[in-house]
Amino acid sequence: MKKPIILVNYKTYETSYGKRGLELAKTLERVSIDTSTEIIIAVPATMITRISQEVSIPVYAQHVDGLPEGAHTGAVLPEHIKDAGARGSLLNHSERRVRLDEMDDALKRMKKLGLESVVCVDRYELVVPMGLLYPTAILIEPPELIGSGVSVSKAKPEVITNAVKEIRKVEGVYLIAGAGISSGEDVFISIKLGSDGIGVASAVMKAKDPKKVVESFVLEALKAIDQK
Amino acid sequence: MKKPIILVNYKTYETSYGKRGLELAKTLERVSIDTSTEIIIAVPATMITRISQEVSIPVYAQHVDGLPEGAHTGAVLPEHIKDAGARGSLLNHSERRVRLDEMDDALKRMKKLGLESVVCVDRYELVVPMGLLYPTAILIEPPELIGSGVSVSKAKPEVITNAVKEIRKVEGVYLIAGAGISSGEDVFISIKLGSDGIGVASAVMKAKDPKKVVESFVLEALKAIDQK
Amino acid sequence: MKKPIILVNYKTYETSYGKRGLELAKTLERVSIDTSTEIIIAVPATMITRISQEVSIPVYAQHVDGLPEGAHTGAVLPEHIKDAGARGSLLNHSERRVRLDEMDDALKRMKKLGLESVVCVDRYELVVPMGLLYPTAILIEPPELIGSGVSVSKAKPEVITNAVKEIRKVEGVYLIAGAGISSGEDVFISIKLGSDGIGVASAVMKAKDPKKVVESFVLEALKAIDQK
Amino acid sequence: MKKPIILVNYKTYETSYGKRGLELAKTLERVSIDTSTEIIIAVPATMITRISQEVSIPVYAQHVDGLPEGAHTGAVLPEHIKDAGARGSLLNHSERRVRLDEMDDALKRMKKLGLESVVCVDRYELVVPMGLLYPTAILIEPPELIGSGVSVSKAKPEVITNAVKEIRKVEGVYLIAGAGISSGEDVFISIKLGSDGIGVASAVMKAKDPKKVVESFVLEALKAIDQK
Repeated sequence: MKKPIILVNYKTYETSYGKRGLELAKTLERVSIDTSTEIIIAVPATMITRISQEVSIPVYAQHVDGLPEGAHTGAVLPEHIKDAGARGSLLNHSERRVRLDEMDDALKRMKKLGLESVVCVDRYELVVPMGLLYPTAILIEPPELIGSGVSVSKAKPEVITNAVKEIRKVEGVYLIAGAGISSGEDVFISIKLGSDGIGVASAVMKAKDPKKVVESFVLEALKAIDQK
Repeated sequence: MKKPIILVNYKTYETSYGKRGLELAKTLERVSIDTSTEIIIAVPATMITRISQEVSIPVYAQHVDGLPEGAHTGAVLPEHIKDAGARGSLLNHSERRVRLDEMDDALKRMKKLGLESVVCVDRYELVVPMGLLYPTAILIEPPELIGSGVSVSKAKPEVITNAVKEIRKVEGVYLIAGAGISSGEDVFISIKLGSDGIGVASAVMKAKDPKKVVESFVLEALKAIDQK
Repeated sequence: MKKPIILVNYKTYETSYGKRGLELAKTLERVSIDTSTEIIIAVPATMITRISQEVSIPVYAQHVDGLPEGAHTGAVLPEHIKDAGARGSLLNHSERRVRLDEMDDALKRMKKLGLESVVCVDRYELVVPMGLLYPTAILIEPPELIGSGVSVSKAKPEVITNAVKEIRKVEGVYLIAGAGISSGEDVFISIKLGSDGIGVASAVMKAKDPKKVVESFVLEALKAIDQK
Repeated sequence: MKKPIILVNYKTYETSYGKRGLELAKTLERVSIDTSTEIIIAVPATMITRISQEVSIPVYAQHVDGLPEGAHTGAVLPEHIKDAGARGSLLNHSERRVRLDEMDDALKRMKKLGLESVVCVDRYELVVPMGLLYPTAILIEPPELIGSGVSVSKAKPEVITNAVKEIRKVEGVYLIAGAGISSGEDVFISIKLGSDGIGVASAVMKAKDPKKVVESFVLEALKAIDQK
């Protein structure tokens, strides 16, 4: 994972799969190359193979089950996503929560396979408890702002500030800020407040011109890093 | 769906993904062609694209969520599996139960997309309640026999007999028998008892020679149909 | 269960427990006696003993687990609620959904113990599938209207009409209408449309004068029955 | 909470409710008085009122939901159990897991109400993550030994030893050992290894003479403390 972290969660928007999902990946790859900045995309399980075959940017799953190989109908295993070309996975998104023991199982298996992991939390008090399981990064997102267009950076900057304080107690884990991020300014503030990057979904997935949106995100992220 | 129904659930066995998962699909395709019999395979979400690009037999997902497009991180939508090349999906496997309202949502969306559906139940009393949501087929499996090597056909033939009686109350829905099916004889008995086919997992996924196993399943299934 | 069915779900409102929960039960008992009409109250698990010791109206649980006696920490068994004095239980409320196999388990155990059961569904298509498990009654509630103050009787009368048609296919199961019921008129319409009674929560639990509210419900219910 | 901690989880055994549940509570109260040692009992939700009215030993719930008062049919709130006479609750038992955000919600509400809390974990790696939410105690139980009659003290002493090391990183949280505890010797070893007490279920709930069993537990616990 490279800073600034720009993570685009495809979710299951109508632009998340098929030709449109693939086109978007190519668009984001172009931005990534043009700006020499890593852009991570978390795509539906069925799209991992197709997208990772066509683009060079890191592809994540949106969820994995921490189960071993065996009789687990319907599960998506760390082995499956790695085999399909993923570099890592989101875990514990507010739309797909995971129990703590299952999370620990999943993270242990992902580490063995060399997969990266971004664990979501909804409050700063959980940054250290989750951080102590040593994912690659913690993504903090107040759920009430997700998809709202009102950004955590502006509406609840103290969530980021507090999370940044907490993450320092856990060595080697990145902190990503998310929820309602919609403008380059939101990105700039998030990083100035101390986060290592941002997570975004609707602002990109529903954009008329996603290239323009993500370009401004990346440019403001780089500007914020420069000023530190 | 064509009779006899032979449904192989890949689950998440070590043979379910990667090269081995693909090779197995090709092997089963050969059996299907040689015997002019449809063999359905239910594969991990990440494998649907790869396998359906390489083989002509019907590929199913093992689970779908009945959610609309939108903000549903980690979900596998009917639209996703169709786009990836699946012809249908399992639903409500004992390893991945679904609430009745979610099942109704999923089935309605699957029908709109022209996807087939196989809904699992664990007891004959649920054949009609589930059948009234009109999936393509009901798969009855006593959970205690799943993966046991002791087949429902021999250990609990009355489960099949009762389920066959029940399915007749619901027009146009097939009945598949499963759990512990491991020999051609198990398949023969299941169909003689009135089922439209069989579901199998471990007996194929863990077989040294899956071709031989499935061939005997198909031949005995055809023999049972002939004798009706 | 006696018609008209008037079912008050205490939920976990601040008036649902302690002295206030008990006082409300006594108030509703008085209305029940004055009008010679049965009023069922579904109360928190911790309140079943206290309330059923003090009032003569039927007390229900809000949920039971269909598990046998044994190692099930945190479960509320049919045996527990019966022993505590309950006459039955709600099941599958939209705020506490239950899988179909668990529902079948729970209903079988409840019948053995002579407990009544009210199974909630959110759409008329599920009236027959759920009805075929033969609970005492089905309570139909479009979830989007629950607690809204906009009643199913006025906003979606066709939900009741369709559910009434469906319930006739299942012998001996009552149909109750719910969601947003707030006035005597809502109750009157619900029963005129063919339901056997109504379910209510917020309109009673948050009322300044619950006695007056429930009295008007009962009187309008009796009027509707008279006019049939 | 007083050391040694002796916690008896009633679960939903046939001895957990009704007269038998009440008699057992009185029996354990006698042992508690005779030995001047606190014995905590975690009872079914429906039994909290009855038992806490009749005995002076601390009564716990087996689970609470971290939800606020309102529209939550079937939930058991911290307010409910406190009102019923409980002094605290188990949380996150392997038979009733809770998500981390729900746990944080529940613990915050329980603290406001002055309720004690015992959070279960299945592995020592989770002692600190859970401990940082500051419950009254952590109960460590390898799930495969629960109800087995093979005690954690003998079969997996390193689980206790490691958990003891971990709990020292979190100030003011007790450590309880559990799973398969069946003899006074098991209790003695657990406390010698550094735990503050033990959790037990089947060995008491299924005992012919629970008095004798718990007496030996308490005496060995006191002996172990003396020797420290």
